[in-house]
Amino acid sequence: MKAFGDPKKLHRAFPASGRYLVGVSGGRDSVALLHWLVQGGYDNLVVCHLNHSLRGRSSSADARFVEKLASRSGLPFETASADVRAIAAKEKMSIETAARKTRYAFFGKTARRRRTRVIFLGHHADDLVETLLLNLFRGAGTSGLAAMREISERCADDADLTIVRPLLDVWRGEINKYVRANRLAFREDDSNTDLTPLRNRIRRRVIPYLEKTFARNIRQNIWRTAVIAGEEENFFETLLPANICQRPLLAVQPLRKMPIAVQRRILHQWLCAAHVTDVGFEVIERVRELLDPAGGVAKTNLSGNRHVRRRTGHIFIE
Amino acid sequence: MKAFGDPKKLHRAFPASGRYLVGVSGGRDSVALLHWLVQGGYDNLVVCHLNHSLRGRSSSADARFVEKLASRSGLPFETASADVRAIAAKEKMSIETAARKTRYAFFGKTARRRRTRVIFLGHHADDLVETLLLNLFRGAGTSGLAAMREISERCADDADLTIVRPLLDVWRGEINKYVRANRLAFREDDSNTDLTPLRNRIRRRVIPYLEKTFARNIRQNIWRTAVIAGEEENFFETLLPANICQRPLLAVQPLRKMPIAVQRRILHQWLCAAHVTDVGFEVIERVRELLDPAGGVAKTNLSGNRHVRRRTGHIFIE
Repeated sequence: MKAFGDPKKLHRAFPASGRYLVGVSGGRDSVALLHWLVQGGYDNLVVCHLNHSLRGRSSSADARFVEKLASRSGLPFETASADVRAIAAKEKMSIETAARKTRYAFFGKTARRRRTRVIFLGHHADDLVETLLLNLFRGAGTSGLAAMREISERCADDADLTIVRPLLDVWRGEINKYVRANRLAFREDDSNTDLTPLRNRIRRRVIPYLEKTFARNIRQNIWRTAVIAGEEENFFETLLPANICQRPLLAVQPLRKMPIAVQRRILHQWLCAAHVTDVGFEVIERVRELLDPAGGVAKTNLSGNRHVRRRTGHIFIE
Repeated sequence: MKAFGDPKKLHRAFPASGRYLVGVSGGRDSVALLHWLVQGGYDNLVVCHLNHSLRGRSSSADARFVEKLASRSGLPFETASADVRAIAAKEKMSIETAARKTRYAFFGKTARRRRTRVIFLGHHADDLVETLLLNLFRGAGTSGLAAMREISERCADDADLTIVRPLLDVWRGEINKYVRANRLAFREDDSNTDLTPLRNRIRRRVIPYLEKTFARNIRQNIWRTAVIAGEEENFFETLLPANICQRPLLAVQPLRKMPIAVQRRILHQWLCAAHVTDVGFEVIERVRELLDPAGGVAKTNLSGNRHVRRRTGHIFIE
């Protein structure tokens, strides 16, 4: 399994002796990732598993399966349980969003306690293509097109996590081959655990349809766009003010002087860091309108009965 | 017909008294655009029509139709003929690429002679969505996602053209309504004149399929992504060295220090300005490899038996 372009690149950036978390659901992809990392000499990993409580008794069995896997690899195991369905209902978000939020909060907490800030995740090339289409069809903008990168930073539960996805250039078929060749046991049936019906439809219907209709390697082409968008996202991040995640106030004046593309990124990061949900194009455009002092508008609504307000040259969330 | 967000915005950027070209194929969209501009007080327009010679006698009839339209509006008419099929065969490019290249060369020449640099084109919101998908499926990267913008610059036949698309936020259905309401005559049947089978399939099959599968306003969402990508493209262009179009040599050293995303844009612009065809991701990555002095590679192939070579700290096309 060729991964991370050149596996040496991974070792250079993240030496095998370092301590890192690895997210293992028990499914095929993360089981393959764990095996591949251990084979590659990573012996200081912490295996992390969040029990989402979405599959009844199967969920606990998943957790026990991953625990055994960790212990057989001689690695420490960290786990937590969350009732994601209840969280989603309470916080009025989709199950998918609630699951992601809970998972990253767990990863952030665990990273702090284990004194690392790096987590390996098992997303692969097909995940990247599916996510790009998903975000495109939802109108998530170019940040959405770059949703998964080999290396990215994320504020999670006040911890800065570095998320590393070594398998992002490996296709699902290659992972299947790797799993078979190494006779790896894994849990889960994709169709049961997939939290997004939309993603399922993209995987099972839209991509096969496009491949049939265009008779060319569409997945490869979309993958490329995602990689390019990822590089551009990296570049845009270098333009963001430091500690954007921790800033309660943003000064209007400097923001207004920035190119629109950068304004949008900054506001997107800022709102997401404040745990505002449903940060779509319209929301960001409405907040951008607040930057215009001649505009007269000084307040705009967010989801969950929150607001952004402009006062004395700053905007803030209340 | 609400166009250009706020029509006042168009008038501010391009006052109605100014001289501008307007590209009119004779089809519904460009006929609507011409009518809308004239109604809006633009009375100094030059109507431009390239006869692509792709539809036999219908092509000449199109040209005569547009000529009459111009004369009835009291506007000067500019036309030229090109055998696009022969050009495509000779220069080994797709009919679509040959048509676009020939058309812009004609626009560039006409703009110089008529002492303007602005041309209005009739692309609308559905065109934008279709082009985004087309480029995505072809792997054109994020520049491809931003292929059409309300205002963009283009080097054409050594003239710098400013391309303005006032209808980019107007949907095909709204243009149809406008054409019916104003009883406008137009030529052409879309299916005959569309030069790209791929685009036709996207319009007639893929988008309806996606709308059916997702039962939400997918077109609107994709349109949004295209608009955001367009803003980012505008921003990236501000980072490009001046006169990139006229530079035979690019210095390696400053280019290497730039973020990868910017390197890619610069090389893309540079190769396109030199009329290199098929400038895809791989080509740009191969040229990027030349920037690495330790890499040992000093030459890479382009289409049409051309090359990029590195010598004494510069790259050039031969």
